[in-house]
Amino acid sequence: MIMDKLYREALKSPVCLGLDTKENFLPATLKAKDWSLGEKYTAFNKAIIDATEDIVACYKLQIACYEALGLDGLTSYRDTLAYLKQKGKIAIGDAKRGDISSTAELYAQGHFTGDFEVDLLTVNAYMGEDAVSPYYPYLTEKNKGLFVLLHTSNQSARDFQEQEMKNGEKLYEMVADAIDRWGAATRGEEGFSAIGAVVGLTYPEAFLELLQRLPHTFFLVPGYGAQGGTGKDIAAIFKQSRCAVVNSSRGLIGAHCQICEDDGFVHIVREKTLAMREDIFQWL
Amino acid sequence: MIMDKLYREALKSPVCLGLDTKENFLPATLKAKDWSLGEKYTAFNKAIIDATEDIVACYKLQIACYEALGLDGLTSYRDTLAYLKQKGKIAIGDAKRGDISSTAELYAQGHFTGDFEVDLLTVNAYMGEDAVSPYYPYLTEKNKGLFVLLHTSNQSARDFQEQEMKNGEKLYEMVADAIDRWGAATRGEEGFSAIGAVVGLTYPEAFLELLQRLPHTFFLVPGYGAQGGTGKDIAAIFKQSRCAVVNSSRGLIGAHCQICEDDGFVHIVREKTLAMREDIFQWL
Repeated sequence: MIMDKLYREALKSPVCLGLDTKENFLPATLKAKDWSLGEKYTAFNKAIIDATEDIVACYKLQIACYEALGLDGLTSYRDTLAYLKQKGKIAIGDAKRGDISSTAELYAQGHFTGDFEVDLLTVNAYMGEDAVSPYYPYLTEKNKGLFVLLHTSNQSARDFQEQEMKNGEKLYEMVADAIDRWGAATRGEEGFSAIGAVVGLTYPEAFLELLQRLPHTFFLVPGYGAQGGTGKDIAAIFKQSRCAVVNSSRGLIGAHCQICEDDGFVHIVREKTLAMREDIFQWL
Repeated sequence: MIMDKLYREALKSPVCLGLDTKENFLPATLKAKDWSLGEKYTAFNKAIIDATEDIVACYKLQIACYEALGLDGLTSYRDTLAYLKQKGKIAIGDAKRGDISSTAELYAQGHFTGDFEVDLLTVNAYMGEDAVSPYYPYLTEKNKGLFVLLHTSNQSARDFQEQEMKNGEKLYEMVADAIDRWGAATRGEEGFSAIGAVVGLTYPEAFLELLQRLPHTFFLVPGYGAQGGTGKDIAAIFKQSRCAVVNSSRGLIGAHCQICEDDGFVHIVREKTLAMREDIFQWL
């Protein structure tokens, strides 16, 4: 079961390295190549994977970075995923797809088989269970997993997610209960279901409350570093349960900019990744 | 302004033809070709566009149909969009993308420029205005438009969209008010903002209420035919305001299956499209 595997990897290192690759992250040596931008992204990503595969739980690819470049970018998305698969590393496709029924089945086909196959996919459940249920056969038969958007760390999360419902709960708490129900049939050996949740680190107290509500949910946590979350915040969660991987992208793969313009950038990415793991583990 | 153009096209025909192309819609002559599936999709789409361009307001491509085939499918998506652009027809990308800030900027870049450029894009605003605002520069400077998911016609719309908030309104009504606010700065000559809404046809009375709430919003309406909505339902809306295009996909581009296995399928698609227009106009 994929969440068992992810949980066990996360015990060694809870770092999810975000390959949200952008042109300005490329070192000068790569920028100078006579390649397409997508080809440069692939070379950049492979070098980072080689330099970090023993110290991260998984990799997350923000597909928007690749979609922005059209077919060239999505070729890089495919090739990076193929490289991760060859290495046996867990890949999360951060696509936040949200459609229903036969359309969601097509997204499941597109992201759990073929060119864009990942182990886990982020999805948006605004349309309700119809936006999630078409993935169920892939969870039970193909060892795949989902992360449903639950409580995001952006300011306008208050527009809807944090609004109060008639029963006094917030919308995201209603979504949380749904995620718990939807995932109940797919719990693995470690107690986590195949349907995880995306919860930002901006409100550590709200996160701790969610932990009580969702004892069988594994979390994908953005918001470390660039978005303000700290290792101490994460450690407070981990003292309750080792139920999450923590994503950082720019803070790991963009840190070398202004410092290193050649192939040595991978050493800086590795240093930053080790420092992030230590920043969390020091509080445990 | 794109909504002015779409409104004027919709006066002539409110039909939005959904190019939700699937393998089982292909006629035997195309199936037999020694081409990739994506290449067959492109030939199928082009033949349909040729046969219907004078009798529809616009075309909507469900990107999931293409994403399901990986790079081959997305090549077809690109090529079909290029063909529509060459013909001067309005293209809606039904991608329901939903991410925030710099990530949403990348989706805007990906879908409003380059390989996957469309005139209007469907988006998901669960994350709040941060999921919509990164598109604003494209609305004002590049004549692009959005359709925000508002009230969808699937059964599990009740899971969240139809839940009652503390103030007694439903969640989708709160989203409706937000769409009105977000679009206020981009109203065109015909009175509609560049930020439209997706509302299903399953609940005609709820739709008529939304019309009162959103006098400056143009609607993309799925649910005709296969999903139960009728021409009479649409005409009831149009008697208040000609504020919508109505999508049909399977009912138009899949109707020939079991009847016609050769290139003559385009005549059936044209007949079905004309019949749909007439089914609406007869009640006006």
